[in-house]
Amino acid sequence: MKFEMRPIGLIHSPYSEKEETPVQGAFRPEGEGRVEVFPEFVDGLKDVEGFSHLFLLYLFDRAGKIALVRPTFLDDEPHGLFASRHPARPNGIGLTIVRLVRRDGPILHVRGIDTLDRTPLLDIKPYIPTFDSFPDASPGWTEGKAVRPKPPGRE
Amino acid sequence: MKFEMRPIGLIHSPYSEKEETPVQGAFRPEGEGRVEVFPEFVDGLKDVEGFSHLFLLYLFDRAGKIALVRPTFLDDEPHGLFASRHPARPNGIGLTIVRLVRRDGPILHVRGIDTLDRTPLLDIKPYIPTFDSFPDASPGWTEGKAVRPKPPGRE
Repeated sequence: MKFEMRPIGLIHSPYSEKEETPVQGAFRPEGEGRVEVFPEFVDGLKDVEGFSHLFLLYLFDRAGKIALVRPTFLDDEPHGLFASRHPARPNGIGLTIVRLVRRDGPILHVRGIDTLDRTPLLDIKPYIPTFDSFPDASPGWTEGKAVRPKPPGRE
Repeated sequence: MKFEMRPIGLIHSPYSEKEETPVQGAFRPEGEGRVEVFPEFVDGLKDVEGFSHLFLLYLFDRAGKIALVRPTFLDDEPHGLFASRHPARPNGIGLTIVRLVRRDGPILHVRGIDTLDRTPLLDIKPYIPTFDSFPDASPGWTEGKAVRPKPPGRE
């Protein structure tokens, strides 16, 4: 069983190298990006302006080799891939929540971007706090892990 | 540009018909499901038990025809597809946040499931409140929309 996916747009960011991207958008909330939706999908953006936050689903198109257990950007201890947000993963789907600043036609200006420039966009979904906000969720192994620079050479 | 994706597991739920599934898991938080991860990916679950909430990414494999603007389950007014969580969308990727009850080897027992039984699983990511919880996010057009049964016949 396999499925084909095609990008619906491109994410433009200030980051052309992996070393420059933040570990998560929440760590660099001021990072600005532009989400470009291809012309054939622009009608689907109707009413998106009413939301302050959006989920972006995209393809980690420049990720390295998959390892099911590995040290992460936040921790030198190895963790399972499905207990981390590491980019090298089966199906390579990335998920980031961004803040919508404004819309100019097919372009969404956003903050809190953490993707590489020209990342293929797969979907946009509205962030709806009733469905999606769980402030008391347990942070698992990430608890108390300080923001730190990415360890050099760690893919 | 196109990409191939393959399921890493299956989501088992009590819902075999679309009419039975809740509009969102948050509307039926007690709905129990089992997330089965295929044997070759089970090692990637290490340390997932520490998280109370998980993102499930899956394929809407039984969705109907895509319409870029349409009435939704929550509202009779039409909204853009990217301003809604409607299942019929380009690339057909679904996103639900579930509560992890316990893990038995390759099986995650979860609550708050809203998918059809035997939905193909594409990815599991930990929900990390520092990155993912925005309780003050604007709910856009969904504001004040009461939970209601799905309008009959609405795909």
